[in-house]
Amino acid sequence: MTPFRVGIAGCGTVGSGVVKLLKENASLIEKRIGRKIEIAFVADRDTEKVRKLGIPADKTYNDGLKALSAECDAVVELIGGTTVAKRLIEEALKRKKHVVTANKALLADFGRDLFFLARENGVSLKFEASVGGGIPVIKALREGLVGNRIKAVYGILNGTTNYILTEMTEKGIDFETALKEAQRLGYAEADPTLDVEGFDAAHKIAVLSSLAFCRWVKTENVYVKGISDLTPLDIEIAKEEFGYVVKLLAISKVTDGNLEVRVHPTMIPEDHILASVNGVFNACLIEGDFVGETLYYGKGAGEKPTASAVVSDIIDLALGNSYSVPECLFKEEELKISEPDEFISSFYLRFTALDRPGVLARIGEVLARYNISIRMALQKGRQIKGAVPVVMTTHPARKREVQKAIEEIDKLDVIVKPTFVCMIEEL
Amino acid sequence: MTPFRVGIAGCGTVGSGVVKLLKENASLIEKRIGRKIEIAFVADRDTEKVRKLGIPADKTYNDGLKALSAECDAVVELIGGTTVAKRLIEEALKRKKHVVTANKALLADFGRDLFFLARENGVSLKFEASVGGGIPVIKALREGLVGNRIKAVYGILNGTTNYILTEMTEKGIDFETALKEAQRLGYAEADPTLDVEGFDAAHKIAVLSSLAFCRWVKTENVYVKGISDLTPLDIEIAKEEFGYVVKLLAISKVTDGNLEVRVHPTMIPEDHILASVNGVFNACLIEGDFVGETLYYGKGAGEKPTASAVVSDIIDLALGNSYSVPECLFKEEELKISEPDEFISSFYLRFTALDRPGVLARIGEVLARYNISIRMALQKGRQIKGAVPVVMTTHPARKREVQKAIEEIDKLDVIVKPTFVCMIEEL
Repeated sequence: MTPFRVGIAGCGTVGSGVVKLLKENASLIEKRIGRKIEIAFVADRDTEKVRKLGIPADKTYNDGLKALSAECDAVVELIGGTTVAKRLIEEALKRKKHVVTANKALLADFGRDLFFLARENGVSLKFEASVGGGIPVIKALREGLVGNRIKAVYGILNGTTNYILTEMTEKGIDFETALKEAQRLGYAEADPTLDVEGFDAAHKIAVLSSLAFCRWVKTENVYVKGISDLTPLDIEIAKEEFGYVVKLLAISKVTDGNLEVRVHPTMIPEDHILASVNGVFNACLIEGDFVGETLYYGKGAGEKPTASAVVSDIIDLALGNSYSVPECLFKEEELKISEPDEFISSFYLRFTALDRPGVLARIGEVLARYNISIRMALQKGRQIKGAVPVVMTTHPARKREVQKAIEEIDKLDVIVKPTFVCMIEEL
Repeated sequence: MTPFRVGIAGCGTVGSGVVKLLKENASLIEKRIGRKIEIAFVADRDTEKVRKLGIPADKTYNDGLKALSAECDAVVELIGGTTVAKRLIEEALKRKKHVVTANKALLADFGRDLFFLARENGVSLKFEASVGGGIPVIKALREGLVGNRIKAVYGILNGTTNYILTEMTEKGIDFETALKEAQRLGYAEADPTLDVEGFDAAHKIAVLSSLAFCRWVKTENVYVKGISDLTPLDIEIAKEEFGYVVKLLAISKVTDGNLEVRVHPTMIPEDHILASVNGVFNACLIEGDFVGETLYYGKGAGEKPTASAVVSDIIDLALGNSYSVPECLFKEEELKISEPDEFISSFYLRFTALDRPGVLARIGEVLARYNISIRMALQKGRQIKGAVPVVMTTHPARKREVQKAIEEIDKLDVIVKPTFVCMIEEL
């Protein structure tokens, strides 16, 4: 069989990993699939980096678009961002090359157009590495669970925040300290916004949602809240008093016929397997009507795991397996996206109140008026600058009502600080 | 596109599940893949059962072999066993029908011949449901991790034994009591041998090993030890004193260039995610050179989860994705299978000794003579009929030496009962 020729645009961390994998495991791959994978070109502005990987000069380009003139069967886009990368993918698809990408931001914002373009040109756009690093979660969802009506997807999809939350939980340190440690170890960027504010996870859950629910979901459809206002106090109370662990959970599920897509700190039961996903590891729980709960776990980032995912897409294409996204995504969209106000969830509420008799009653009165039913309540003896934390968990309630109740409660004279709110998923 | 026509032979638990899935989710599947899956026939000795599922009389057969005369693109074998099922698969392959099976026993013993036969006839033999029920672990290993050199596979692959071990651990009850409870709940068969003695897990790890290591592995290549001689005492000591949880682990890994394939009660660190896999759930940890550790978790048995896996194979075939086993399995075999005597592992040893001074020294002397290095040792005060448990964990040692040392120690006059031995995996 003729070799499958693949061009790689972008030779940063992941691109280098892909080149290394394709070289180191070349004979293993050929033995397994009965076909050789050949590197047609590697393009990067820094051609020196490409040379150091042992790519010959005639296959080295300083510009991905120029490299497209080289003969190849598929192009791997590992440039990142949504400008140059987008143009490169469009150009490659128009030239009827299959494309493999790890670019979740691009897919979340422009996926629809790109997949339509791929379809028009009779080629495939694959994206295993865009979610969950090396974990083959796209393949599991798209192919392994293809017979299931998907009920829900719950993901710990960002290693940086999961590392920070694990450190905060295990060591009782605050967010800033844990973030600095993560930066020191290279798990967090100098500007950590994309990770800690939940946008990276939002891109990923948008991609998963589109696959799971046959409805294009964009970043703007995702309710996003980051982890920067979490305190060790809430993490400790959640665990010690209520048996919950706090995770930055990406959630996508159908409620009352509408699709809820959200990323926010979430309290989950400590004995659920998702609660055991610690450090930089990622995991994704997918629930289907026939299969029940399944979970996929592994390293969600890094040169080598991400390269593993990219190469699985390349090999799929080399084997002629071009199924990329469900056909129904090219039909009309039916499922409505819920407004955040409409979310129904149990809540953890920490009020900061003056240590006076009757506080619980006054808070309770407001909650009752908004039909919010308290599940557990406790008043801790600890003094925080003369005030005490009053903590409650609620039965499922609509977010809108909870917000209104909190606004009202926060105006009470016994409340000295804005109330901390966190959603709970019983899973 | 023309419908993809599938015939189902065997309409027991899984067969019924497949029929239900294909009916209930028919329009969902068609929307996703752009092709209709049509039931060409359902064959079962009990045709009344088939009728109750709403299959018309002209598509109902009382014999799978006879049904093969019906027109279809793929045949699903869900008869079980290694006689009729084998004949049916052979006949279907010879008639150039793709085959989907959930039959791990058959694959573990006769897989090689069947895959060669499929290849000769230019069709595919798919088997996602043979391991891990609904978890798409075959697809993950074969396709998702295809670029990786696989270092090890560790699986909790039998729900019955995992349920029993979870109950023994959480409630401190003995094996017999937990088994009765499992039987009452329908998690264990009246004759539980296949599950509790490890043979079911052995079939499954044989299948996974063949995929992972490009070498046909049969049941007879697997070292198997069941869980029936485990006591709550060892489970408790392992957890309380050493931080280990006991699981029936199926292990496949390359050590010193040889392949070790084994199923036995194994102590694993309680903070490893595999230790959180409880009850009837299954999980499989796959370690690749690029991807690192990945884990796949879900329900390992039952009508609906297994049907989900069978249908994923059917849909793969309908989409033209016929990749089934690595090409290298059709070449010469290279990897040697290790003899159990050669396994290197850490060990947990519980001696039952008279409560006399010098016992530890005498045991230690024998172990030292066999070059077995003690990691931790403790003597519990409890009296078991006048004797005390003396418990040790060792550093990695060769199984042969450990067995010889134990034989010698068990002959000492201070030892009153055969020593309990359990392997440890640090993971």
